Amino acid sequence: MKSSKLALSRRIRTTPFESRVLEQGPKVFSVYNHMTLASVYRSPQEDYEHLCTHVQLWDVSVERQVEVVGPDALALVELITPRDISRCAIGQCVYAPLVDEHGGIVNDPIILRLADDRFWISIADSDVLLWLKGITYGSGMEVKVFEPDVSPLAVQGPRADELMAEVVGPEVREIKFFRFIETEIVGTPVYLARSGWSGQGGFEIYLQDSSKGIELWDAIWKKGQAFNIRAGCPNLIERLESGLMSYGSDMTLENNPIECGLERFLNLDKPAEYMSREALDKIIRNGVDKLKVNLMIEGGPQSAPRATFDVVSQDGIKVGIVTSLAYSKKHAANLAFAVVTTEFATPGCSLKVVTEKGERVAIVKDRNWK
Amino acid sequence: MKSSKLALSRRIRTTPFESRVLEQGPKVFSVYNHMTLASVYRSPQEDYEHLCTHVQLWDVSVERQVEVVGPDALALVELITPRDISRCAIGQCVYAPLVDEHGGIVNDPIILRLADDRFWISIADSDVLLWLKGITYGSGMEVKVFEPDVSPLAVQGPRADELMAEVVGPEVREIKFFRFIETEIVGTPVYLARSGWSGQGGFEIYLQDSSKGIELWDAIWKKGQAFNIRAGCPNLIERLESGLMSYGSDMTLENNPIECGLERFLNLDKPAEYMSREALDKIIRNGVDKLKVNLMIEGGPQSAPRATFDVVSQDGIKVGIVTSLAYSKKHAANLAFAVVTTEFATPGCSLKVVTEKGERVAIVKDRNWK
Repeated sequence: MKSSKLALSRRIRTTPFESRVLEQGPKVFSVYNHMTLASVYRSPQEDYEHLCTHVQLWDVSVERQVEVVGPDALALVELITPRDISRCAIGQCVYAPLVDEHGGIVNDPIILRLADDRFWISIADSDVLLWLKGITYGSGMEVKVFEPDVSPLAVQGPRADELMAEVVGPEVREIKFFRFIETEIVGTPVYLARSGWSGQGGFEIYLQDSSKGIELWDAIWKKGQAFNIRAGCPNLIERLESGLMSYGSDMTLENNPIECGLERFLNLDKPAEYMSREALDKIIRNGVDKLKVNLMIEGGPQSAPRATFDVVSQDGIKVGIVTSLAYSKKHAANLAFAVVTTEFATPGCSLKVVTEKGERVAIVKDRNWK
Repeated sequence: MKSSKLALSRRIRTTPFESRVLEQGPKVFSVYNHMTLASVYRSPQEDYEHLCTHVQLWDVSVERQVEVVGPDALALVELITPRDISRCAIGQCVYAPLVDEHGGIVNDPIILRLADDRFWISIADSDVLLWLKGITYGSGMEVKVFEPDVSPLAVQGPRADELMAEVVGPEVREIKFFRFIETEIVGTPVYLARSGWSGQGGFEIYLQDSSKGIELWDAIWKKGQAFNIRAGCPNLIERLESGLMSYGSDMTLENNPIECGLERFLNLDKPAEYMSREALDKIIRNGVDKLKVNLMIEGGPQSAPRATFDVVSQDGIKVGIVTSLAYSKKHAANLAFAVVTTEFATPGCSLKVVTEKGERVAIVKDRNWK
């Protein structure tokens, strides 16, 4: 099954921008956090080229927020991630894998610090709300956890600064990477962050009132005409080139952040209590038997697998699986994320991938595809 | 948006029966618990007629299981629902709304008791696994919570008994409603329960080894030829006629079980501790300001809403919303579930529904559409 028709019901929630998204005629949708997410507009390649050259407007309402507020807010947010959140300033956001007491990854959100005792967890595709409600209830922590009426709209691409300077003012150019400001657009308060799920630069606008969705979209769309704006969405080719993993595809609760190569985002010695400390200590002490790698697969375009392709050694023994795949014209090769036995996880290592079209040579690359 | 193409990736999990499902050519899929669920094969009406006359095989792997096992298993399962689970015998299953400490519905699963200290929670569409992991971690309860390799396959329809007697043996006829037995099919252990998400009777087979999915499907399919078997799936028309609500569509975390009319499934005075006791006591004391009702909407077939249709009083004032809708030939009317202000929730009350085709008369009916 490559694609099929999507049946819709109230259970798969609408977004505040949905009618405008539909006007732009996306070809396929995904479902993410019980909500629709456009996945391709023209073709993955056309969308990619436009994203890397101009500016795009992305309905990423599916990045639902879990608000954590109250006296124990920092303690709770510290508890659920091995990243040191005490270092996160108000107005800053950090990428923070959420890890359970066994070392399993629950989600890999961006955490925004809105105040000393108030955070938004901008989540990937799993019900973090229920997890935090459970921990809070069980532990008796003094904190409120809920999903606020917040829907992010992303402006991504090399011309995002020019466009947002037109929409908001020149001060947007001063926003540093993974920092945000409070401002207003179309008279409604928004947080404006320099962030987004691409490597092309840009902003995420956190709308806090669904009823203003169309007005917000239209205001940016109108100013965007001068910059050749198009509707867009997270792009598979671009995210592979930029090394962005997708929760549920490239990592799940079955994976730990060490084998997923996320150590650089962790502060394992942080002072605060966190639930995965013992488990991660043990994992590091014992070493991991598999690792996430970047694989460059030779030959022409190979469609992405529905399930997974096996990775095999030169001897034909299965040593791992491919978790995401796309053809990159820039590299003239298929780029893939895979998880392979540790001994084969060294850049330069030559492996094979069993695709639908047969075996292909695959070379392990470093994080920058070198 | 009525329907669109579904983009697939590893994040939207495959089922053990998927290749066989695809051979039967379903027209649309939904996504449920991060997994594919066929939603229509021929047409909702054709599927409905066949389901009510013959027997169907449903891939309901999306009914993921959350296993709860250990010394505190019963205490945990009691904690999360106002239903008295101590009364549930080994080999029995019960419908049990899960309710949080504010009275909000987290999910509405079937709970199977496998042993004194071992349960499966067969879930609707939300990550109950994360909720229970959170409560367990926070409270320090002595219990293991995980998603086992279990995929239910349902056999539904009036000829289900005949078919399963052929597949397993005549003893299946003795299984009482919401009871299950341990048995083997194609040499693999399964639980066989008299249950399923339709009012047409039948069984759910809990496969415990994904690698046996195709063999299990094929064995039933082959014997099913004599009974005019077809692949099927939960059917919107049938579930409305049978009064089956869908979590996420007809109730969410924003709703409590009292306003959803679920009181008959609760044992609010049960001896065990449960987290929603105080909240539900208060809700009952204060009364609810809205109630779930069955609405019969006059006029010809009306397509189901993408979002929601408003329900208005004779004076044209909005008094509620429609949450599910399908046209029933049997009743020669559109059947809908709706939530309306309590004063309009009495059977016989005449309201109006604002459809895409204009206002239509809608009469409140009782649970049996009388």
